[in-house]
Amino acid sequence: MSDYRAPLRDIRFNLEALAELPEIRKLPRFQEATPDVVDAVLEEAGKLAAEVLAPLNPVGDRTGNRVVDRAVLPPEGFKSAYRAFVDGGWPALPFAPERGGQGLPETVSTAVNEIWQSANMAFALCPMLTEGTVVALEQHASDAIKDRFLEKLISGEWTGTMNLTEPQAGSDLAAVKTRAEPRADHYLLFGQKIFITWGDHNFTDNIIHMVLARLPDAPPGVKGISLFVVPKFLLNPDGTRGKHNDVYPVSVEHKLGIHGSPTCVMSYGDRGGAVGYLIGQPHNGLALMFTMMNHARLAVGIQGLSISERAYQKARAYARERVQGQIAGRDGRVTIIHHADVRRMLMLMKSGIEAMRALCYVASAAADFAQHGPDQATRARHQERFALLTPVVKGWCTELAQELTYLGVQIHGGMGFIEETGAAQHCRDARILTIYEGTTGIQANDLIGRKLLRDNGRAMAELIREMREVAAAAGMSADADIKVISSQLGTGIAALEQAVAWLLDHADRNAAVPGSVAVNMVMLVGTVCGGWLLARAALIARSRLDSADAEFLSAKITTARFYAEHFLSRASSLSRTICAGADSMMALTEAQF
Amino acid sequence: MSDYRAPLRDIRFNLEALAELPEIRKLPRFQEATPDVVDAVLEEAGKLAAEVLAPLNPVGDRTGNRVVDRAVLPPEGFKSAYRAFVDGGWPALPFAPERGGQGLPETVSTAVNEIWQSANMAFALCPMLTEGTVVALEQHASDAIKDRFLEKLISGEWTGTMNLTEPQAGSDLAAVKTRAEPRADHYLLFGQKIFITWGDHNFTDNIIHMVLARLPDAPPGVKGISLFVVPKFLLNPDGTRGKHNDVYPVSVEHKLGIHGSPTCVMSYGDRGGAVGYLIGQPHNGLALMFTMMNHARLAVGIQGLSISERAYQKARAYARERVQGQIAGRDGRVTIIHHADVRRMLMLMKSGIEAMRALCYVASAAADFAQHGPDQATRARHQERFALLTPVVKGWCTELAQELTYLGVQIHGGMGFIEETGAAQHCRDARILTIYEGTTGIQANDLIGRKLLRDNGRAMAELIREMREVAAAAGMSADADIKVISSQLGTGIAALEQAVAWLLDHADRNAAVPGSVAVNMVMLVGTVCGGWLLARAALIARSRLDSADAEFLSAKITTARFYAEHFLSRASSLSRTICAGADSMMALTEAQF
Repeated sequence: MSDYRAPLRDIRFNLEALAELPEIRKLPRFQEATPDVVDAVLEEAGKLAAEVLAPLNPVGDRTGNRVVDRAVLPPEGFKSAYRAFVDGGWPALPFAPERGGQGLPETVSTAVNEIWQSANMAFALCPMLTEGTVVALEQHASDAIKDRFLEKLISGEWTGTMNLTEPQAGSDLAAVKTRAEPRADHYLLFGQKIFITWGDHNFTDNIIHMVLARLPDAPPGVKGISLFVVPKFLLNPDGTRGKHNDVYPVSVEHKLGIHGSPTCVMSYGDRGGAVGYLIGQPHNGLALMFTMMNHARLAVGIQGLSISERAYQKARAYARERVQGQIAGRDGRVTIIHHADVRRMLMLMKSGIEAMRALCYVASAAADFAQHGPDQATRARHQERFALLTPVVKGWCTELAQELTYLGVQIHGGMGFIEETGAAQHCRDARILTIYEGTTGIQANDLIGRKLLRDNGRAMAELIREMREVAAAAGMSADADIKVISSQLGTGIAALEQAVAWLLDHADRNAAVPGSVAVNMVMLVGTVCGGWLLARAALIARSRLDSADAEFLSAKITTARFYAEHFLSRASSLSRTICAGADSMMALTEAQF
Repeated sequence: MSDYRAPLRDIRFNLEALAELPEIRKLPRFQEATPDVVDAVLEEAGKLAAEVLAPLNPVGDRTGNRVVDRAVLPPEGFKSAYRAFVDGGWPALPFAPERGGQGLPETVSTAVNEIWQSANMAFALCPMLTEGTVVALEQHASDAIKDRFLEKLISGEWTGTMNLTEPQAGSDLAAVKTRAEPRADHYLLFGQKIFITWGDHNFTDNIIHMVLARLPDAPPGVKGISLFVVPKFLLNPDGTRGKHNDVYPVSVEHKLGIHGSPTCVMSYGDRGGAVGYLIGQPHNGLALMFTMMNHARLAVGIQGLSISERAYQKARAYARERVQGQIAGRDGRVTIIHHADVRRMLMLMKSGIEAMRALCYVASAAADFAQHGPDQATRARHQERFALLTPVVKGWCTELAQELTYLGVQIHGGMGFIEETGAAQHCRDARILTIYEGTTGIQANDLIGRKLLRDNGRAMAELIREMREVAAAAGMSADADIKVISSQLGTGIAALEQAVAWLLDHADRNAAVPGSVAVNMVMLVGTVCGGWLLARAALIARSRLDSADAEFLSAKITTARFYAEHFLSRASSLSRTICAGADSMMALTEAQF
């Protein structure tokens, strides 16, 4: 039996209370997302996750993937799990009904994705990348291309991949060398891509690769990269499957974690050229790919939440079971959940997870309003918020997931270090999250450059204003816990304001300043956002305490206070470090390291 | 060729300037530890480490250990490496000349151990545990036992192990069940021990196990545990090797890291009883084992330093080589060491490592003075300091090693997640350090209970007084960097004082308080100690800046400033969290998690 159960009560609380799903439901596009529909979706997702996906998680870790006869053989059981996933209609959840989608809000999709990624992150990467492929094609492809590929990707009959990285071109995509030669109605691609997640498998009849490459007349650098769609199998004019395109997996990497997910070296054009079709304008591929990457960045942030939740559930079960030592005031030996330090670790996990969940869901709600809001001003306001939060969701949630999965192992003591226990897998799997889809440093540069400096801090000031309102409301509460939260939140907001002001003041003085403070700024914004949203959660919980759900709601308040005392308290140190600037960081010569 | 080179310049600086080796040399016991001798020892250790031990590190990780015919088969090459290690006389380094030791100070031994543990932690665990066995026998065994076992352990002809843990008895040794039945001149042991590092191997003729077990008349709990020495092979009356004792490895664990080191399940007395000999008084075994554990705790703290240094060297090499992106003011693409965020990570590693090194060496110097100081008062003073610092060295250095080895992977980007790169191994290996020889929680309880509350904060007040002197001296420096250091150190010390005062004031009010603040206190004390010692280092470096070593010394000052801005800045947050107390941590019912 599975050791993962979807935390539906907290998921629902976050959807309804913090992400304001009732408001989203009022938008014309989402009127069918009734409470009953959403409840049924969450229940069914929880079932598939617990019964099918979660039990395969250790299987994928143990057996990994192999390349046999130029094709990837995934772990036992993954193919039929994917079938069940498609049969349930899950790939279509967030997409437009016009092409077979179910048209549910991004916010609901985020909740469901949280569940998949907790159950089996290696498996869930496959539909996650397909989702990104759909988003990119929906926004940028011609109708002819859409007609050819979109519906089967939305239904999950086919899957999609992202092909960016090459050995010399990682964070720096300007260095991409894969070339595309024009032919009559298509292009021929030649080159090698690395780190291609689910680049090949046996789940589906076809795989649709999104590939960055250079045209012969491309200018150097990032302004010379074009985006192509390259199917594994060519399509006959009638849409049936034709011959194998000239694209093959060469090998799969031997990785620290996510063994269940094949990370492929993909070869394009070894035997005459891989047929591809241009998406959008020539040389504009990077901008288009960013659509896909931004979607994936939110999704990877959610993975940080998910893997932490999975690790938490495992550690909690162990802490409730494992007998060790004694405590004052109790006879005999106790389960370790009674020891203060084990509680400290469980509370760090629980409160960190609830803060991440709040941030991921609230960011998704902003995405829904940004796309489907009633008027241009509303859409623009939410788009600005979504853009501000995206690098924070990706950067902060994935960094926090390192700390929380670490604690998951620590709670297990010596058993945590033994692979069969399973706690270590979550730690190893989590380790990729701060790297792929842009390292934390890359997210941080996005936050600083495009989201803070470009508008001179305007969007951030608006966010801080909202935070202050919550801190003020909490300050007027009669609840002792909420008073503590308000005080810590006030200190945290002040620290954030100080750091932002310092940055705006110093960014021009020294070229190294933005990059040198960027990651600490991501952590600071994420930490304070978590405190803000948990303060909101505590206020809402307090107002409902006389309901049947009092046990859950009072835990919500306590957890918010713990977060304020143990995480939010870090804000002032982060701010102090940011305001120390770049001098000591940049002073050494290369030889002095 | 090896990718590890012993950082001899910084090791020498720490030995001479911070650990005050010139003062240790004045003690009668250590007069032979002349600068020439110490230099030669370090040079030779560096050579053996780079040429023999370090190249075997990935080999051990890849192949691991197997049990074949009730014996452990270590990785290829480890046996001959151990031979070279013994031939070099390395096991005898710190021990008394009376039994074949070389009589060098613990401080020098610490420097040499740092080198072994950087080169190959899995391998170096074997001599590390032998060292602990020698210390325990030297202090507690009868002369007859000493005569039988000690010299061959000191020479490395035999190795030693620690057998404490059983499935139901981890942190809680009160639950030990292994039993010892008295016979004429020995005991027969029956039971199973788990997590026995280097419990078996083929390096040596014999292995000497130190085993905790219960006598038939033992009272329950920790006051009923006795310590036995159980050789793998019995000795004939003439000291030659007799028949195989009834102790065998049953299996080795499949672990997250340190694959090169066999972690054995050991079976005692499956075939009639394992012959053992009592050490010290009956029922007093736990107290005796603590000698061995305290030694091992310092050694594990050093491992935290060592694995971080190894990870740093790897990341630094990659950062100097890997070309990616551009920066303002430079033409063309640059190596990533020029990017601010990569520098931030390298500086975090470098400064964290230098702080750990300073703390480990200074703690070892206290051990030398505690044992060999000229008078009782000096010895007592240093013993108190050593006792205070031991849980900090173990707890803080091993926790910090998690962060630094994490950064080592992060600097490698996507390549860091690929096992063949080797960066991930250091991360996986480091993960055991906060668990074995007592988790961080156990160290923290030792710090709070035995080192802070028992003397009502006296030893800590004395440490704080010394710290204040350094902060004051730094405050009078004309050097701009050192002024910054002084200011941050002053803030850090104040935060520490506040947290200690809060603890002393609140410990009696609520039984959960000590345990709930303990780990944060370890981190706070470690963080401020690091700042104190790097401030001392900076002051010394400043006074020598006109020497030929100016490049190294000016880097020392910059690094100390970076530490003050990026690590010491965390002190106030830790203090604020400690002073929040236990309320929110302990409030939830078990069901509310």
